Amino acid sequence: MKFELTKELLEQIKHQIEMRNAKFIIDEIGSLHPADIADIVEHLDLNEAKYLFDNLEEEKAADTLVELDDDYKDKLLETLSAKEIAEHIDQLDTDDAADILGNLSEDEKDETIAQMQDKEHASEVIDLLKYDEDSAGGLMQTEFIKARESWTVKRCVIELRRQAEDVEKVYSIYVVDDEDVLLGILSLKRLLFARPDALIKDLYRSENIKYVKTYDSKDEVAEIMKKYDLVSIPVVDRQQKLVGRITIDDIVDVIQEEAEKDYQLASGITENVEATTSVLKNAKSRLPWILIGILGGILSSLILTNYEDQIAINPVLAFFIPLITATGGNVGVQSSAIVVQSLANHDFNPGGIFKRIFKEMLVGIIIGITCGALVFGYNYLLNDGDMLMGIIIGTAIFVVVIIAAIFGTLVPLLLDKIKIDPALATGPFVTTSNDILGLTIYFFIAYLMSA
Amino acid sequence: MKFELTKELLEQIKHQIEMRNAKFIIDEIGSLHPADIADIVEHLDLNEAKYLFDNLEEEKAADTLVELDDDYKDKLLETLSAKEIAEHIDQLDTDDAADILGNLSEDEKDETIAQMQDKEHASEVIDLLKYDEDSAGGLMQTEFIKARESWTVKRCVIELRRQAEDVEKVYSIYVVDDEDVLLGILSLKRLLFARPDALIKDLYRSENIKYVKTYDSKDEVAEIMKKYDLVSIPVVDRQQKLVGRITIDDIVDVIQEEAEKDYQLASGITENVEATTSVLKNAKSRLPWILIGILGGILSSLILTNYEDQIAINPVLAFFIPLITATGGNVGVQSSAIVVQSLANHDFNPGGIFKRIFKEMLVGIIIGITCGALVFGYNYLLNDGDMLMGIIIGTAIFVVVIIAAIFGTLVPLLLDKIKIDPALATGPFVTTSNDILGLTIYFFIAYLMSA
Repeated sequence: MKFELTKELLEQIKHQIEMRNAKFIIDEIGSLHPADIADIVEHLDLNEAKYLFDNLEEEKAADTLVELDDDYKDKLLETLSAKEIAEHIDQLDTDDAADILGNLSEDEKDETIAQMQDKEHASEVIDLLKYDEDSAGGLMQTEFIKARESWTVKRCVIELRRQAEDVEKVYSIYVVDDEDVLLGILSLKRLLFARPDALIKDLYRSENIKYVKTYDSKDEVAEIMKKYDLVSIPVVDRQQKLVGRITIDDIVDVIQEEAEKDYQLASGITENVEATTSVLKNAKSRLPWILIGILGGILSSLILTNYEDQIAINPVLAFFIPLITATGGNVGVQSSAIVVQSLANHDFNPGGIFKRIFKEMLVGIIIGITCGALVFGYNYLLNDGDMLMGIIIGTAIFVVVIIAAIFGTLVPLLLDKIKIDPALATGPFVTTSNDILGLTIYFFIAYLMSA
Repeated sequence: MKFELTKELLEQIKHQIEMRNAKFIIDEIGSLHPADIADIVEHLDLNEAKYLFDNLEEEKAADTLVELDDDYKDKLLETLSAKEIAEHIDQLDTDDAADILGNLSEDEKDETIAQMQDKEHASEVIDLLKYDEDSAGGLMQTEFIKARESWTVKRCVIELRRQAEDVEKVYSIYVVDDEDVLLGILSLKRLLFARPDALIKDLYRSENIKYVKTYDSKDEVAEIMKKYDLVSIPVVDRQQKLVGRITIDDIVDVIQEEAEKDYQLASGITENVEATTSVLKNAKSRLPWILIGILGGILSSLILTNYEDQIAINPVLAFFIPLITATGGNVGVQSSAIVVQSLANHDFNPGGIFKRIFKEMLVGIIIGITCGALVFGYNYLLNDGDMLMGIIIGTAIFVVVIIAAIFGTLVPLLLDKIKIDPALATGPFVTTSNDILGLTIYFFIAYLMSA
């Protein structure tokens, strides 16, 4: 029952497309879930994909288009006429339709909208286009089911049957007043088990209902749905009028994207690089971070220039440069990561910024003493009891660890304050700064102690 | 409508608890969502929390217990008697009950089960305890709604009404045969709009239905629910018998945990460290990675020992140690991160491992040439046209980048092959190895060129 795209299956499909075997596509591929068909399409070239799409049922084709990854979708859309795109969009839920329109140029957008058959659908989609795509308005769909307080259960079921034609998945019914202001929520389960003559106003829940406003950010929507385990949430405008709903599948995507973005920032990749991304694009999205690292390396070399004589006299000092930079970098990234995660989880922090830094300093002291003692011991044994080098490096490690812990805590907090994604702090930026900081401390201590 | 725990509110609550104001707790806190009450509880000391719990309604108290973070929950459970825990568990869904029992010692578990009032519920919970907590069986609940093919809609609604008492959220009805073998799925929407005398067998969907087996991993469950946008999925045993269901809220938690785990591995934290974690536990969970880094640093220093004479003659060589290690580390982590993400997303890779490495080598060449040229140019300008140092460092960077890219690609692939979480590769382990690798290459090239 689980679909798996094997090499053999892919070759067979490519062969059948080459043979122009429309029956194979309708029977064998048309019966699959759109997400599975999208998996297949992403491994076809554009001509093959186009033939496949032309032979799928209209609704299946449109749903498959939505499931494609963004790169492939854009390429495929470029090969389609405004009329063909409009035919797909006519089949889609408003949120998916708006997403596809949003990717087109202004001219293409106008032309496609003009070609849409279902004018009411078109105007709803146009309404959605005005919202920021990172807001609740940008995520919501206008397909939902609403009922009035005064209805009986029987009337409600009749009315809902008509509304439900357009709504693929129904989880809850939103109860509104005559001005469409959201009053409460009625679960489908409750409606199903109620007597036909019962009144909606006696059944629905109006207390503690969770909703979002069109201008709330998608992160806020995700947070609420996650916290309260919701599968759908109503969206209201500034006058509390019900204008849409957001379902959990879209929020799962938001959560996944956010997590991947943090991970990528921490790994120093600016854009979404996948295994299938071209070599040039891959290199281009990675170079900025590498160049920041190079710049940091050059700065480090300039700092070291000041200690040229010391290194010439005592080359052993140079041996421990990697130890200092690596340890500072590791501690700093750990500290930043903890802050980034607690910011992402909105951990309530009664003590504020100073308490957090003080705590991090204590952690730094514990780690610093352990590492410092270890490195001192190693040097002491290696140099047959000559303590100076051990003291220099042990002290340097101790200080570098504490400074790195504090610095790693501060940077993401500051980035967050000035509205930059704090996850940036766990990337090459902090490691590079820590290298420079660490070396400066190390050679300054060496200078003081050797003098 | 959005609940926010402010410092003032927290102080007020603490004050009312101190005053032993039970009415305040019932009226002001008892009306909140369990997730919000859990937020409050996590900021109370254990005595305060216990007083609050004692004054909440039984069901609300139990639901709040489930929402607490693991650290706090464990501490609170330690203060409760087996009888008190049993009272909470009696109120909970089977999956939540099993999670709490799973955290107790064997003795406490037996004692608690003996104290449970609802014996049928108790035996269902005991059944769940036998599954691996990372499997579908460990995630599922035994509360679900099932119907027989032969029923009419009318009979189905009557039967469901009885079943639904135990089931908090109903999304779909699972249709089974007389042996409880899963036949298909009927949406609540479809049932609601059907004629009362229609037969279930004419309404339900049996093709392409998605289900999981009890022994499937939670990652597989998450993947399927994410891919097919499901809000719940039935779980069957080895004989295809329906034994439970998993709802999307639990899967959202799985997705979130997985993402956080990857991020933590990449940042070198072994356990879940939060802003509220104690200083000692924080330090303890971070030290292992730091010590690996220290070990790597000591290894680096041993390698450099071989080049002591060279450094003494030409200290400039030492100046570029941080540049070499940082660049190698950055490129390696990027390469690993791309592999880790494509493994996590199950990107189909027709070319296999060699094609991927070849591609990564090409990316490495582009980045390597750019960085090498830049560093050469910088040295050339700095040293008034003396090219040797520039050539040494430029060449070293070029080679280090390519090796780091290949190494960074290989490590997560190998880890994955031997069933270790590949995200480990983006942590301090690869950076440390890259430091050693980079320095060896750098000084070897310097040795060759200076000779």
